Amino acid sequence: VERDFVRWLRQRLPRIGDDAAVLDWPADRLIVTSDMLMDGTDFELDRCDPQRAGRKALAVNLSDLAAMAARPMAAVVSVALPRSQRLDFAQQFYRGIFRLAEEFQVEVVGGDTNSWSGPLVVSIALLGEASGPGPLCRSGGRPGDDLLVTGQLGGSLLGHHLDFTPRVREALTLHAAYPLHAAIDISDGLSLDLSRLAEESGCGASLDLDQIPISPDAHRLAEQVPGLSALDRALGDGEDFELLLAVPPEVTRRMLDDRLVNIPLTRIGQLIAAPGLWARRSGQEPVPLEPRGYEH
Amino acid sequence: VERDFVRWLRQRLPRIGDDAAVLDWPADRLIVTSDMLMDGTDFELDRCDPQRAGRKALAVNLSDLAAMAARPMAAVVSVALPRSQRLDFAQQFYRGIFRLAEEFQVEVVGGDTNSWSGPLVVSIALLGEASGPGPLCRSGGRPGDDLLVTGQLGGSLLGHHLDFTPRVREALTLHAAYPLHAAIDISDGLSLDLSRLAEESGCGASLDLDQIPISPDAHRLAEQVPGLSALDRALGDGEDFELLLAVPPEVTRRMLDDRLVNIPLTRIGQLIAAPGLWARRSGQEPVPLEPRGYEH
Repeated sequence: VERDFVRWLRQRLPRIGDDAAVLDWPADRLIVTSDMLMDGTDFELDRCDPQRAGRKALAVNLSDLAAMAARPMAAVVSVALPRSQRLDFAQQFYRGIFRLAEEFQVEVVGGDTNSWSGPLVVSIALLGEASGPGPLCRSGGRPGDDLLVTGQLGGSLLGHHLDFTPRVREALTLHAAYPLHAAIDISDGLSLDLSRLAEESGCGASLDLDQIPISPDAHRLAEQVPGLSALDRALGDGEDFELLLAVPPEVTRRMLDDRLVNIPLTRIGQLIAAPGLWARRSGQEPVPLEPRGYEH
Repeated sequence: VERDFVRWLRQRLPRIGDDAAVLDWPADRLIVTSDMLMDGTDFELDRCDPQRAGRKALAVNLSDLAAMAARPMAAVVSVALPRSQRLDFAQQFYRGIFRLAEEFQVEVVGGDTNSWSGPLVVSIALLGEASGPGPLCRSGGRPGDDLLVTGQLGGSLLGHHLDFTPRVREALTLHAAYPLHAAIDISDGLSLDLSRLAEESGCGASLDLDQIPISPDAHRLAEQVPGLSALDRALGDGEDFELLLAVPPEVTRRMLDDRLVNIPLTRIGQLIAAPGLWARRSGQEPVPLEPRGYEH
């Protein structure tokens, strides 16, 4: 149902297709995004500090703005709090939001607070301002572009999905310094999000499997849970919240050498003219890769 | 808990206090609001067409912008859909949003669609642009201002709370034509929302009980449910979504005579210098009135 519905929705909402929406007013500089998180799906409040859950609710929105290279400005926070919880719980939850907001100079300007008999639900809408040459979109990639990724991928379930740092500063720095073509944040899994970026750009993509930066947690999880290798997890686990960038090949070397950002930046493949997703190991022929990840 | 928590929150969020937030950028023209609605609280999906529920989710946000005399522009819609429902249900729900959006020239620019095992939750953030001389706030009232109300009040539970027309056009028209001082939308009950407007304006208020426009549904409900009179319902029922305006006394006559809007506009009292809420019947002394309504 979910997938059919999203298809139906996309036909009606032409602007959907990026991590955030660019408004016409004022003059293509205003960016808005919104994410809803539910207890039991995006965090488990019986096992996780409410402050971390609140932090995540803002962090996923910050990651969406990072993907557009937009500067976060203001947030509105709507929450349905479980009636069974005490005052302290709600305060801790909001503290998690407020602290991250302060760190990223986001002002919480309003919202809506409710209580009910259901589990906690939070929805944050985040407004930002486009930076540099304007919003970075998924659709700007071209065949021949290099694919670069920040940080390390996979295994976020072990904690990273709650504690990740949204790549806002990195996006602003790189967008100001280099002529980036396209970006997406890896929220649903590298292969799935790459397939989206490629599709929106009217391209295919080829991944160099040997180059993918696999996180220690992906290795740890691969040991604990049989069936999926660490590489599988880097390709398909969701919630890395790293940035995937498409950049003109002539700037790749410079980007990697300049080291303008304090986190790893790795070339993992390139966009190609032929549609579809391909994967190759060094010295071997590319093989088709099925996009895999979290479908909402 | 709820009331203590909201007090705690207000200390941390200086901008909370109006129906929507006015952003500094760009130049006090951008207004944003957000409301979260939950099945079982704001509508009952086992007894109500999902289209009406979707409509309400946008309508309450439109009403918040009306209270600021802001022109609605763009919405982001985040939803948690019950996994048990069919595709058709989700489509009907969104159709309710889309139809009202079209009616009020709002573009749905994005959002987030999820499914889960809980009841339907929807959160819409609505962006608008200030009109005329700028945003209309709760705090602009002055002692001596007349209090005017649109439409009729009370008994919304019988259907009005789902099918009301947000007073966007009326707010824009009146704000353009007259020097309004303050406004609030009556979402939680006339007496409660009036006490908020008066407090934010640093005033008290006196209501002329004989002047309050009582809706036929308030009379109907008073007959069906003993204990509360039709007037009680007009004073304390929530979800009228009418506008309460504070206007300089010298323009009241003109506003009532001009009839620029096609709905009733009634003078129901005035702001006074002394704090607190008062009520009087014609020919009698004012007596203190306890604000009553829906506390979130």
